[in-house]
Amino acid sequence: MTVTVPGPTLGVVGGGQLGRMLAEAAAPLGVAVVVLDPTPDCPAAPVARDQVVGGFDDPDAFETLAARVDTLTFEIELADSDLLDRVADEYGLSVNPAPETLGMIEDKLVQKQELESAGVPIPPFRQVDDADDLRDAVAEFGEVMLKARTGGYDGRGNVPVSDPDDADDAMAAVGGPAMAEAFVDFAREISVIAVQGDGEIRTFPAGENVHEAEILRETVLPARTTDERLERADAVARDVLDTLSGRGVFGIELFETRTGEIQVNEIAPRPHNSGHWTIEGARTSQFEQHVRAVLGWPLGSTRLRCPTVMTNVLGTVEETRPARLGNVATVLEDPDASLHWYGKDDVRPLRKMGHVTVTGDGDHDPDGLLSHARELRRELRFEGTD
Amino acid sequence: MTVTVPGPTLGVVGGGQLGRMLAEAAAPLGVAVVVLDPTPDCPAAPVARDQVVGGFDDPDAFETLAARVDTLTFEIELADSDLLDRVADEYGLSVNPAPETLGMIEDKLVQKQELESAGVPIPPFRQVDDADDLRDAVAEFGEVMLKARTGGYDGRGNVPVSDPDDADDAMAAVGGPAMAEAFVDFAREISVIAVQGDGEIRTFPAGENVHEAEILRETVLPARTTDERLERADAVARDVLDTLSGRGVFGIELFETRTGEIQVNEIAPRPHNSGHWTIEGARTSQFEQHVRAVLGWPLGSTRLRCPTVMTNVLGTVEETRPARLGNVATVLEDPDASLHWYGKDDVRPLRKMGHVTVTGDGDHDPDGLLSHARELRRELRFEGTD
Repeated sequence: MTVTVPGPTLGVVGGGQLGRMLAEAAAPLGVAVVVLDPTPDCPAAPVARDQVVGGFDDPDAFETLAARVDTLTFEIELADSDLLDRVADEYGLSVNPAPETLGMIEDKLVQKQELESAGVPIPPFRQVDDADDLRDAVAEFGEVMLKARTGGYDGRGNVPVSDPDDADDAMAAVGGPAMAEAFVDFAREISVIAVQGDGEIRTFPAGENVHEAEILRETVLPARTTDERLERADAVARDVLDTLSGRGVFGIELFETRTGEIQVNEIAPRPHNSGHWTIEGARTSQFEQHVRAVLGWPLGSTRLRCPTVMTNVLGTVEETRPARLGNVATVLEDPDASLHWYGKDDVRPLRKMGHVTVTGDGDHDPDGLLSHARELRRELRFEGTD
Repeated sequence: MTVTVPGPTLGVVGGGQLGRMLAEAAAPLGVAVVVLDPTPDCPAAPVARDQVVGGFDDPDAFETLAARVDTLTFEIELADSDLLDRVADEYGLSVNPAPETLGMIEDKLVQKQELESAGVPIPPFRQVDDADDLRDAVAEFGEVMLKARTGGYDGRGNVPVSDPDDADDAMAAVGGPAMAEAFVDFAREISVIAVQGDGEIRTFPAGENVHEAEILRETVLPARTTDERLERADAVARDVLDTLSGRGVFGIELFETRTGEIQVNEIAPRPHNSGHWTIEGARTSQFEQHVRAVLGWPLGSTRLRCPTVMTNVLGTVEETRPARLGNVATVLEDPDASLHWYGKDDVRPLRKMGHVTVTGDGDHDPDGLLSHARELRRELRFEGTD
């Protein structure tokens, strides 16, 4: 393989924080990034070479992007997979991961069906087209998580249901075709960031995820569980990769049940919030890996450099307002902390605005690091907040 | 101190690799960078928010930059210090480091005079205005290094002289006012990257520099010398900071003589090539520190994460040609190596095109890491090279 720099120009559908961190990681490799995003001056724009302003299903914008780049990828599931496929074909470009994998993952029912048929462990589930289907699911599984088949993220489109009488309201809340998954009484949620390269696969050490109201709050490395369970998580993640097509980073969210089983919760066909810790905590970040993988370049080392905790900085506001985060000095002064600000103009309730990573180069234990990260996060305040 | 993000927009005079790496480091902090550089689409341009195209002494370009930013810095000594001072005053902006410090450092004779009067250890030197002065210097010191007072870098403008008969040729070679420094029979060259923040000073662990033909080839951390000498180097670097005004990163190149003395060789009022190792090897990079320092934000930890070697990728070509570096896969495949490509369009003889950093998270010794870095660098080839 002859890799040369400067490398090809990478077109990325989506220009949020993931696109921004992709562009940050691409620059040292000599890879230019052009993003497509509907929001003018999106978070990735200041760091990317350029932005095409357009929707995730806008044919003209996709054509404009395709005409300017050498290869395509995406950082958001809302990217129109058919359109990606069509413009790639028209402009003779490759798209990674494969649009059919994006299409498969976009539909949570199809995603689970694919995993089931591949023998990957998942919670029991049922297709739910109407309230009767949902009542059947509750009758069969007891408590279920009702999930919109498409469009949900960060818990949006997810409704827990245990009483059959709530079925009509729940269906109205998800607002369309859905699936119901048996509620998993998990010991913890973990995730494996897996990378499909050109004939090689790498996985990062599994991280432990702390969610609240279904939004990721923290990721802890190493995960506080047994080596045996971590090995099992890694094996399951590799089995998941076998069901996916095309190169790139995949975020694989897993349940670790109280009896020690590993089940797949969800798959993201892109760098994932639970992999942000890799920027400081791993030898190669998930963003650099994604760039390498999409280009067909050799992958980097995924080894953990030291215990690491990532904590999200969410929009702790009641109403949308211009985003100014105060009291940042506490984070900057901390010898173990790194700030990542995503450059979003407005803060909205629970919006992901940035993250803070704390590393334990010394002898810090994961518990201590997690407490430390939470203390730092609590110091941060959006100006104008009560 | 109330630090908020997004932070102020930073104007940087100079948009070479230092400007590029500054912009890479500024992005996660939520700090936008606008660079000024005469080369359209300069190395920093793709990563910075914008570039003002103009010369380092172009008043109109400086005004355009000043009108767009909240604070000013520079990444090249060629930045016109009077002009910086003037536009900063006109637009009510701060400039860091202080223009008078830039002006002082720009003139190697004045630099040495300042250090001498502050009691900082330096090699003996003399002002050299003509060949007679140079002959006097040779008579006094024996072998000397004749240095142009202004404009020299990477050994350009430096001529070793030991024979008085060579004085006329040497003066013609440096082409203007000069200074002569007693040749130092050093054991090794080391450097300390020192950071002047807002009421606080940080120094990175001293690195050992390997030069060839007066161009830096490698920096090795930790430097392979005694703790006592490293402590002395750190103390001298802090004394140097006392002679400088304004906030920012300073690269302080030192000689370690065979008898163990530490003497200052040169000062750069900006992030320095011998500090590139900090991106992977230190908890905070010199570029992030510079951004923090210039903004008056708290400084980050300078601790060494693990043994680290940086090797420059120089233009190994006979003639200028479009830059394409081949055989990069060897670096990418290496689990301990990171590639940094500066995005320069043309490769020229000995031009700094990029660098490779090798970290020894495991048990690697500096000698082994240095050999390893050299092997990797030798694999890299500019396409079209014989």
